[in-house]
Amino acid sequence: MSFDTGSGITPIDFYFDFSSPYGYFAATRIEALAAQFKRDVAWHPIMLGAVFKTTGAMPLPMIPMKGDYSLHDFARTARFHGIDYAQPPKFPIATQSAARAMLHIHAAHGRHRATAFAQATFKAYFVAGTDISDPEQVAVIASSLGLDGAAIAEGIQTPDIKDRLKTVTEQAMARGVFGSPFCIVDGESFWGFDRFDQLRHFLQNGSL
Amino acid sequence: MSFDTGSGITPIDFYFDFSSPYGYFAATRIEALAAQFKRDVAWHPIMLGAVFKTTGAMPLPMIPMKGDYSLHDFARTARFHGIDYAQPPKFPIATQSAARAMLHIHAAHGRHRATAFAQATFKAYFVAGTDISDPEQVAVIASSLGLDGAAIAEGIQTPDIKDRLKTVTEQAMARGVFGSPFCIVDGESFWGFDRFDQLRHFLQNGSL
Repeated sequence: MSFDTGSGITPIDFYFDFSSPYGYFAATRIEALAAQFKRDVAWHPIMLGAVFKTTGAMPLPMIPMKGDYSLHDFARTARFHGIDYAQPPKFPIATQSAARAMLHIHAAHGRHRATAFAQATFKAYFVAGTDISDPEQVAVIASSLGLDGAAIAEGIQTPDIKDRLKTVTEQAMARGVFGSPFCIVDGESFWGFDRFDQLRHFLQNGSL
Repeated sequence: MSFDTGSGITPIDFYFDFSSPYGYFAATRIEALAAQFKRDVAWHPIMLGAVFKTTGAMPLPMIPMKGDYSLHDFARTARFHGIDYAQPPKFPIATQSAARAMLHIHAAHGRHRATAFAQATFKAYFVAGTDISDPEQVAVIASSLGLDGAAIAEGIQTPDIKDRLKTVTEQAMARGVFGSPFCIVDGESFWGFDRFDQLRHFLQNGSL
């Protein structure tokens, strides 16, 4: 593993699926954490369903026994960390449209607008219960940020953007990403919002 | 969910499998945590393999991608928390003998000796790399605590003790236990060593 402590140039690669509650929790904290250590965050929306085909994993709520616990843990973890949360009525949800919209915004308007869109999308889904599998709702979220919703609804249908999402997901898997949230920085991987304490320690000390 | 804050009488039910690194980490901390809030700990060795048959889960190291990460995370989490750890050469391992020995010691010598045996067994496996699937090694661990190793080697072969382990595991599953470590106190469930922060908060405040 290679380390690049000190220079502070390497970004934190932040992988997530828009349907992941722990991904949402991480999304509310990652920018502040990174800024504290003068790091940028590279946000990568991935298709966890494609990843699960490789690992044999299932969405948490569908696993016997683990499912009920998980629903309880989502809400409890949100309260524990002081994060707004309401279990969405439609869960889990297809996230291609939201992920493609983010990649389209990134390509057209740069990473800051893309990050703002990702944060707004997570909030729309996990606080307001918006159906983010619906391209129209995704366009509404984009419009609320001053972006051209109609252009985005068109953009997410292009082969370029569809391919881009596949590539992002494949590249993530090639780097060992198997869940959401998943952070990689300076060759060190951290799976789960509950590894943010170790991620913080690593950013501070350059080792663990 | 029922709460019993204040009286401090209800024990923390602590479920674990001797082959679980996170169960070991939890075992090094649970007694001190409980004592801080004047709670007892009821230690319950379970057969995670039987539980996994229901949930469809696999031991972490056998899951594609997750396996390599997990091995890295075991060692890193141990360092982060200042816990002695050496990845055992034989892993995961069959834990019937160790679990039965613990139940036998509990029946014959009470819970304090049983807890001391559990702690020594975890340490033998996760620090010294002892093959705890071997009944002879289990007897050696018991002997090192001043217990009669030969009597224990005999005790773990009795139908009574074998049935007891099945019952403990079945009762755990009936309460929703699906992993290791798993704590239940006052009707609230906590899965994983990384929920000890929430467990502590709950013990302190009686709610979460």
